Amino acid sequence: MVKRPRVVIVGAGFGGLQAAQSLAGAGADVLLIDRNNYHTFVPLLYQVATAQLAPEQVVYPVRTILRKASNIQFRLAEVQRVDFSAQFVETEDAVIPYDYLVLATGSQTQFLGVPGATEHAFSMKTLEEAVALRNHIFACFEQAAHESDALRRQQLLTIVIVGGGPTGVEMAGALVEVLRGRLRQDYPTLDWRQVRLVLVQAGDRPLADLPKKLGVYTCQRLCQLGVEVYLQTRVKRVTPGAVHLQDQTILTETVIWTAGLEASPPETSDELSRATKGKLLVRPTLQLLEQSNVYAIGDLAYVRQNGVPLTGVAPEALQQGVTVARNIRLQLQGRAPKPFNYFNKGRLAIIGCFSGVGKIGVFAFTGFLPWLMWLGVHLVYLPGYRNRLLVFITWLHSYLLGDRAIPIIFAPSRTAVRKRVTLQEAMLDTAGDRQKGGDEG
Amino acid sequence: MVKRPRVVIVGAGFGGLQAAQSLAGAGADVLLIDRNNYHTFVPLLYQVATAQLAPEQVVYPVRTILRKASNIQFRLAEVQRVDFSAQFVETEDAVIPYDYLVLATGSQTQFLGVPGATEHAFSMKTLEEAVALRNHIFACFEQAAHESDALRRQQLLTIVIVGGGPTGVEMAGALVEVLRGRLRQDYPTLDWRQVRLVLVQAGDRPLADLPKKLGVYTCQRLCQLGVEVYLQTRVKRVTPGAVHLQDQTILTETVIWTAGLEASPPETSDELSRATKGKLLVRPTLQLLEQSNVYAIGDLAYVRQNGVPLTGVAPEALQQGVTVARNIRLQLQGRAPKPFNYFNKGRLAIIGCFSGVGKIGVFAFTGFLPWLMWLGVHLVYLPGYRNRLLVFITWLHSYLLGDRAIPIIFAPSRTAVRKRVTLQEAMLDTAGDRQKGGDEG
Repeated sequence: MVKRPRVVIVGAGFGGLQAAQSLAGAGADVLLIDRNNYHTFVPLLYQVATAQLAPEQVVYPVRTILRKASNIQFRLAEVQRVDFSAQFVETEDAVIPYDYLVLATGSQTQFLGVPGATEHAFSMKTLEEAVALRNHIFACFEQAAHESDALRRQQLLTIVIVGGGPTGVEMAGALVEVLRGRLRQDYPTLDWRQVRLVLVQAGDRPLADLPKKLGVYTCQRLCQLGVEVYLQTRVKRVTPGAVHLQDQTILTETVIWTAGLEASPPETSDELSRATKGKLLVRPTLQLLEQSNVYAIGDLAYVRQNGVPLTGVAPEALQQGVTVARNIRLQLQGRAPKPFNYFNKGRLAIIGCFSGVGKIGVFAFTGFLPWLMWLGVHLVYLPGYRNRLLVFITWLHSYLLGDRAIPIIFAPSRTAVRKRVTLQEAMLDTAGDRQKGGDEG
Repeated sequence: MVKRPRVVIVGAGFGGLQAAQSLAGAGADVLLIDRNNYHTFVPLLYQVATAQLAPEQVVYPVRTILRKASNIQFRLAEVQRVDFSAQFVETEDAVIPYDYLVLATGSQTQFLGVPGATEHAFSMKTLEEAVALRNHIFACFEQAAHESDALRRQQLLTIVIVGGGPTGVEMAGALVEVLRGRLRQDYPTLDWRQVRLVLVQAGDRPLADLPKKLGVYTCQRLCQLGVEVYLQTRVKRVTPGAVHLQDQTILTETVIWTAGLEASPPETSDELSRATKGKLLVRPTLQLLEQSNVYAIGDLAYVRQNGVPLTGVAPEALQQGVTVARNIRLQLQGRAPKPFNYFNKGRLAIIGCFSGVGKIGVFAFTGFLPWLMWLGVHLVYLPGYRNRLLVFITWLHSYLLGDRAIPIIFAPSRTAVRKRVTLQEAMLDTAGDRQKGGDEG
């Protein structure tokens, strides 16, 4: 029997997972590798950070998604290195050969060289970061509730979001609602004039990728909701307990960084050609320039459409996943891969309850309709029909009855690291490393 | 204006929370203190450990529960010491005076002096422990999926539950279903003859508190489901990777300890009279023998009814919470507290899907009816009507469609401790201490 070719996909985000699913039934053994055993629905992470959704509602076990495809295996591991000439990927405890490789390891927060940001600002790119942020915000409120020093209380109750992209805007809208809605009821003794939410933005309007009209609307709406929006303002420095802008310092225990991303590829044996933000240069077919049996997709790849770089949203990664699977099937048949072509269905963002902005084709619109469409679209794309049902009920409940959810300060850290450290460390990728990082920070 | 008397309640479990709620509107300022900002619905914790429910579904924010009672405040803190003569409780950063004090700090796992159990067995008394156990079980399966050594694989796939009380029995029933149902589909390459679930029990039947008939039925039902039940067997020792019984050693990475509890009172200025399991001796009115303005309830108190000690179930704590509130109201009016009297509505336990056992009055019954009643009772008592709805849907989904939930290996530990260690430590009670414990273990 002839050995079947082996496709290894690194990363179970939108692109990698879609690539795996689209390779179901292909004449190859597919191995999907991720450092988590779940797929994270990143566009809803901010609702975990604001305690509107439970963490389990925005993730889904990879094995369950792939259950029906008998040629696809999953492995929980962190890829540490890729060797192109010998054609293998290396994890902590294994060397895994490949015939075709798809790199889909996504991006990580980039702090743009702002001093102190890495150490003192919160990022929101992973489920763990979203939960850590949620814990932190509510722990600050708990402390403020019995803090007698007014200045310190102000510091605990001030939240600064850096970055006016979709994540920053949606986070600001959601947070201001939670703060002024539910939390106000839960902390009746706090002086709510001390609660401040600030959005800092380098450009002249939020949502700079979208038509100007939408950015202006967004800005007005956020201000109406009580968010202080600082335009054309840069963060100079973050220190413990404060964020320093060009012309003032804001005392705050919570700086949320949504302002920059950079590609996060694994270490490779050969140097790869890079574009801006560390993205890998790829051919129109999504193959690496240097390796015709290696693809890069999603936030990892620098892809242009009609001369304009793609913006890094989920539909781009999903469509690239489909393309890469088609191209690998072509290569398996000895045929040439075909170029990727992005079909832009539109863009949507919401600004708190009942209002949003959208751009579909040449139409740009604001208000209730894009808000409703955003909800619908996210429900449809959320993996797992039980998740869909639970999130739908949670939203219905939140938006109609105004009860906003789950401000649980939950730190499994306390016991999770208590026992069996070696086994946990071995299994849970870089737990040890990251903790070391924490001790230094 | 006369200063209102102050009631301090330590612990927001069933007893403490109920006491606080029952003091709503009383002529006193009530302060409820807990180390978590949420109430844990302990009877469903095992379903978190088996990934059938999400952690957020079995807890509820204390502040939200107490929202409507204007005389009740909450404080997130760990009480470190109680001074009876000066009448205050001490936390890390505050000294809180009281006129009346309710101690409701519950119990913790007691390892009965079995060597190695503290270090190497999993306990399931808190949300964090339940999530840590879930993470561990599924991490073992992930590791087994690519383990080539058969003996090691067997070790990873063997789970031993120690203790045949309701928690052990319900955990065994739930786990065997998850293992042989959902996980079998998720890990198609594993040899399922290697998956072992063992229940070890010192007595001659499980559920020794209930009529013999029910224990015998439970034992048969567990065996039918594929659980290996070892009766009249004692655990001699737990070592990393194995549990040693009196006549054999079982290789396992997962020992779940449900066999013993002991009262967990805070440190006190004066020695208190203790009964078995460290429980505090109380008067029939639930006042401490030594202090007439201090009450102890729930797992902390040694209470007899008709000469028989209470068994430590939630309804006992709930009813004691009501009694203690009534007695404090009486004392506030200058009247004498009245004795506690437990009204036993019955006992229920389930053994996996569609079967359970129950005792109500003199009737003992088995099968579908007590299973259904158990579901109903737990739904009714679960705090928060959205939790109720979500759990109901999850159960409906699980039991009717056989899809069992959320095997997410989630370790916020990795990032939660990365940042702002000082603030986190200050806010989240003994995080530092416990981690120290982990490093030693």
